[in-house]
Amino acid sequence: MGRTGAAGANPSGYPEWVNAPAPIVLDSDPGIDDAVALQYLLGTGLWDLKAYTSVGGNLPAEGTYRNARSLSRALRIDADVPVHRGAGRPLSRLPYREASAFHGPAGLGNEDLPDSTAAHPTESSARALLRLSREYEGELTVCATGPLTNVAIAVLEDPGFAHRVKKFVFMGGAAQVPGNITPVAEFNIWADPDAAEVVLSSGIPFTMVDLDASHRWLFRPADLAALEAAGPGTALAARLMRTYMNAYTRHGGDGTCPLHDPLAVGVCGDESFVTAADGAVVVECGSELTRGQTVFVPADARRIYYSESPALTTRLRTTGRVALGPGPRDFTKDFVTTLPRRPATTTR
Amino acid sequence: MGRTGAAGANPSGYPEWVNAPAPIVLDSDPGIDDAVALQYLLGTGLWDLKAYTSVGGNLPAEGTYRNARSLSRALRIDADVPVHRGAGRPLSRLPYREASAFHGPAGLGNEDLPDSTAAHPTESSARALLRLSREYEGELTVCATGPLTNVAIAVLEDPGFAHRVKKFVFMGGAAQVPGNITPVAEFNIWADPDAAEVVLSSGIPFTMVDLDASHRWLFRPADLAALEAAGPGTALAARLMRTYMNAYTRHGGDGTCPLHDPLAVGVCGDESFVTAADGAVVVECGSELTRGQTVFVPADARRIYYSESPALTTRLRTTGRVALGPGPRDFTKDFVTTLPRRPATTTR
Amino acid sequence: MGRTGAAGANPSGYPEWVNAPAPIVLDSDPGIDDAVALQYLLGTGLWDLKAYTSVGGNLPAEGTYRNARSLSRALRIDADVPVHRGAGRPLSRLPYREASAFHGPAGLGNEDLPDSTAAHPTESSARALLRLSREYEGELTVCATGPLTNVAIAVLEDPGFAHRVKKFVFMGGAAQVPGNITPVAEFNIWADPDAAEVVLSSGIPFTMVDLDASHRWLFRPADLAALEAAGPGTALAARLMRTYMNAYTRHGGDGTCPLHDPLAVGVCGDESFVTAADGAVVVECGSELTRGQTVFVPADARRIYYSESPALTTRLRTTGRVALGPGPRDFTKDFVTTLPRRPATTTR
Amino acid sequence: MGRTGAAGANPSGYPEWVNAPAPIVLDSDPGIDDAVALQYLLGTGLWDLKAYTSVGGNLPAEGTYRNARSLSRALRIDADVPVHRGAGRPLSRLPYREASAFHGPAGLGNEDLPDSTAAHPTESSARALLRLSREYEGELTVCATGPLTNVAIAVLEDPGFAHRVKKFVFMGGAAQVPGNITPVAEFNIWADPDAAEVVLSSGIPFTMVDLDASHRWLFRPADLAALEAAGPGTALAARLMRTYMNAYTRHGGDGTCPLHDPLAVGVCGDESFVTAADGAVVVECGSELTRGQTVFVPADARRIYYSESPALTTRLRTTGRVALGPGPRDFTKDFVTTLPRRPATTTR
Repeated sequence: MGRTGAAGANPSGYPEWVNAPAPIVLDSDPGIDDAVALQYLLGTGLWDLKAYTSVGGNLPAEGTYRNARSLSRALRIDADVPVHRGAGRPLSRLPYREASAFHGPAGLGNEDLPDSTAAHPTESSARALLRLSREYEGELTVCATGPLTNVAIAVLEDPGFAHRVKKFVFMGGAAQVPGNITPVAEFNIWADPDAAEVVLSSGIPFTMVDLDASHRWLFRPADLAALEAAGPGTALAARLMRTYMNAYTRHGGDGTCPLHDPLAVGVCGDESFVTAADGAVVVECGSELTRGQTVFVPADARRIYYSESPALTTRLRTTGRVALGPGPRDFTKDFVTTLPRRPATTTR
Repeated sequence: MGRTGAAGANPSGYPEWVNAPAPIVLDSDPGIDDAVALQYLLGTGLWDLKAYTSVGGNLPAEGTYRNARSLSRALRIDADVPVHRGAGRPLSRLPYREASAFHGPAGLGNEDLPDSTAAHPTESSARALLRLSREYEGELTVCATGPLTNVAIAVLEDPGFAHRVKKFVFMGGAAQVPGNITPVAEFNIWADPDAAEVVLSSGIPFTMVDLDASHRWLFRPADLAALEAAGPGTALAARLMRTYMNAYTRHGGDGTCPLHDPLAVGVCGDESFVTAADGAVVVECGSELTRGQTVFVPADARRIYYSESPALTTRLRTTGRVALGPGPRDFTKDFVTTLPRRPATTTR
Repeated sequence: MGRTGAAGANPSGYPEWVNAPAPIVLDSDPGIDDAVALQYLLGTGLWDLKAYTSVGGNLPAEGTYRNARSLSRALRIDADVPVHRGAGRPLSRLPYREASAFHGPAGLGNEDLPDSTAAHPTESSARALLRLSREYEGELTVCATGPLTNVAIAVLEDPGFAHRVKKFVFMGGAAQVPGNITPVAEFNIWADPDAAEVVLSSGIPFTMVDLDASHRWLFRPADLAALEAAGPGTALAARLMRTYMNAYTRHGGDGTCPLHDPLAVGVCGDESFVTAADGAVVVECGSELTRGQTVFVPADARRIYYSESPALTTRLRTTGRVALGPGPRDFTKDFVTTLPRRPATTTR
Repeated sequence: MGRTGAAGANPSGYPEWVNAPAPIVLDSDPGIDDAVALQYLLGTGLWDLKAYTSVGGNLPAEGTYRNARSLSRALRIDADVPVHRGAGRPLSRLPYREASAFHGPAGLGNEDLPDSTAAHPTESSARALLRLSREYEGELTVCATGPLTNVAIAVLEDPGFAHRVKKFVFMGGAAQVPGNITPVAEFNIWADPDAAEVVLSSGIPFTMVDLDASHRWLFRPADLAALEAAGPGTALAARLMRTYMNAYTRHGGDGTCPLHDPLAVGVCGDESFVTAADGAVVVECGSELTRGQTVFVPADARRIYYSESPALTTRLRTTGRVALGPGPRDFTKDFVTTLPRRPATTTR
């Protein structure tokens, strides 16, 4: 498969040492912000997208698979990038609720996009992740913007997956701020806490792009206007983002909306979009009250202030990068200027 | 029983409308900061202390009862204020650990104070709380600086207790900051989360003086020097606070220590020592990871952002005041200047 | 207070060494079978009933208090035996459901009994239990036929309660048979599992009269006919038992009904109504699926077959008597012949 | 792959309509009884073993994979039947303990069997299960004698797996009898309760061969003598069974041992080795006390006796066959006479 990124030399201002597009898998539950995250990923020119693996989340698995196929066609990657079907159910046995209030009944606002004409691969999302982790051992970036079900299955089936991946960046969790689905939990982690705990305890080199950061890079009406003015290639994105902003406004927002999933893609290329710290993240899987909470323990915590349980003490040794706020580089600006580099089409 | 407060007209700068000392019970697990909290309470002149009810916490119940008796003698209230024995065990069946690392093996640093000569009352702490809530219905302030076991037993035995109390102020919890015994829990609530949940769901008019506030009013070396210079009446307090500061320093601190329990007493008289908001506090009682976490949901939360469970939705209607930070009035200063107004003696 | 039992020398066939009526408290949530259990208790002539302490269970606490008062009048003990109000809520924070499907909307079938004319004591059920455990230290039998809330509060407030009681017999649990409110839980324990665990871990000398035994001593149509033929003094009991049998039939029964609560009273006097073994009973308090399950571990279990958790290993040292089936002495017969010895009246 | 069963027309007394060996996968964590279960399976002549999929359980995954390979060589199927490596960890995040006290430090008593010379397949156990469920859709029997981790991963990745399998028989659980690793749990389910719940809620047509049945088909000294007398082809099995009997004796047994895993294989061919009933099995995944308990609810339960939670009510609609005791056909006899039909060799 060839290079899927946008043409042009270093188009988005990344450091000079970024030469060739790097292999990546986008594991996603589209979903509006997942949709524009894909377009953004392609627009950066930084990535060679090896697979677009869908996962149940904003919708059940069949719905996100359908949307992922449609988006791969809209962005004209369907001939090159296989789209895989995600796990049929979460690991968690807790009841699940889809997020159609924010993403529309079919998950992509009011769009009715045509299906891809590509054949349906027999390989599931988890298997594609496992295969690619072997083919690109030590090189592969995995970016997850939905629940971590597929990634957890890959880890369960083969714990070596965690060590073959170069970097694992996911949108999810809330380290030091309230949640968005419950007072203490973010939706992606809440939807499959058991999967998140399997992944975050696996030793995978993770970066958590959480609400601490994503609620700080907002998409404003002026950004929408810019997308609308950028021509037909961002018309779909603009319509989707307008729907998304309206949903946030309906739910008590201030006329803006966060750029959750695109930010995770952004951080795959450049951590300076966020401020991050090293630490462990332990996921609450049992309690109804705190289900899906991502308990963050900084690596430099003055541990001595509290006595942990033995199990927790051991668990705290598995650390990664955790976003604690926005970083110096302006993500919203990068998002708005990058999207037009990879035009989408909705023609049938 | 007579007035137990310090003499003098409005000695500590409270508003003019504060005329007569108001009835209060101090429910406490001494413990160093509990000890100075008692001296501070007496020093303010605001309160008519009706009972000093001990509770297991920093030490098991028998130890805090012994310490409470000694302190009542040291502060010469043993003839007037009954000291009661607390519940023999927490409501929670989870394993418990005492806090002797901070308070010394017998809970009061290196002090060996003589016992009170008062008779041992047959009434338990919980019963004294219940009786006084009837005798001073609508007037009684209850200030708790340990686990909420006694208060929970009072509520369980007679739910009307919650409605007869004028105000319930407790030191405990962490609303928006990390915990001090685990990454998410404060010691008093962690030690008996089931008791805290019984109390905070009872409808009692509560104010939570949590780590959000108490970690912001620090006692510094200069404050210690001031206490040491204030004469023999604060010598005991100074020795205790020195031990406490040393413990914090040993555990990674910066040479200061927080004024947890005195702050709760302070807030009984004047909320302006903290910045507070209305909201519900739900206590995690089940999970080992998040045991004792105080999930704070502001009353003005844009609830619409998350979907709660039905049980949680109902529970959120029971709200109180929750400290979110230090307030405009300087508590450390008030503490240091108030303590000398009520001299302690350690003479046998 | 005088002797409350029936007159006559050793009227119910108990061993000769039973001379004087022994002090007992009946802690009960009437409820139909609680009602006839009281009449049976009085009929045996074995007991000096010191208090009739109500507890929430089949109905919330206020309803069982009302019924307990009415029953004390119907059985003409209201001048002698104080009736106490139970705890206002269970220890457990789990949702609770009353048992009116079996006991009728007001808990006593279709009866509308007049209230007692006795004054309302200020002492709660838990306090009465505590006081009597001191007054009759080493002599007092406590028989509980509802949730163990009151007993748990007594234990929490004063762990010595467990050691001052001579014998504690309760109706509740299921050791080796299915439950009656869930597949694994019996109603009384399910209604307040936290209370049961507090009590059964306290060291109190307990006998668990569970479904293993109570589902084996059935009350049949012929027994109903016998009660109906026994004169006006058992007319109330007969009407109640008819309602109860009908409820069981409606719920899939075979025209009989179990004698749950009377059996517990019977066992207070003579264990030979059941077959029992020594063992520990640990109560599940956390999980929704297994809430209220009474995990039975025989004292002579070949422990070596399984590895317990350290907490469980310690907990297993606290053992009591656990009924595993019916015993050699015929309880149903004893019940039917004893009831007429203590006639009830429903005259206003 | 050719027929792997023993030669001979209908050698083990099964009904005439059993003509051709049927496709089966054995998913196993050898382990002694797993080892003889494989020899028994091959000896029956009923089965065409398509894969021998190992799973962590009695030992961690790497150890059971090694043992499965050695056993495939000892039974001379290594050229025909692929042996697959199981999932690297259980789904459950609860701590796990291996069963070497019963199976020896390396899981096969004191044997040191040579490795198979077959190549290591890249396909994991879960993938082999998924592939074979497609290749033999509607025909494949899956027999699991260890924790259900592999099967759960197959179900999570593709819920259709549950509907393509003809029959799923597993050794595990305890329906109406005590457990063997805790008072209420059997080892295989305890070791990965989350996996068991995923599988038993999936709609797969399951038969649970539990301790209710397996503790009733005992292997006695006379059976050991018969195996020892049956020639070199059962010498390995005899040595293993002697070790296993000794372990049970050491752990409080009576000189016999149960035939757990072989019985599950037996039931794949003929349910009459057990007495079974239809019902739901819900697995406790949360509580430490009851972890791994298999709550059995008979399909013909007079449900009306208890009120279930809504979640449980829905869950109870997923039913299967549950063994409640031994059946009319003598399994121990069948085991002892079948084993010699498939001789093993330990020659290097």
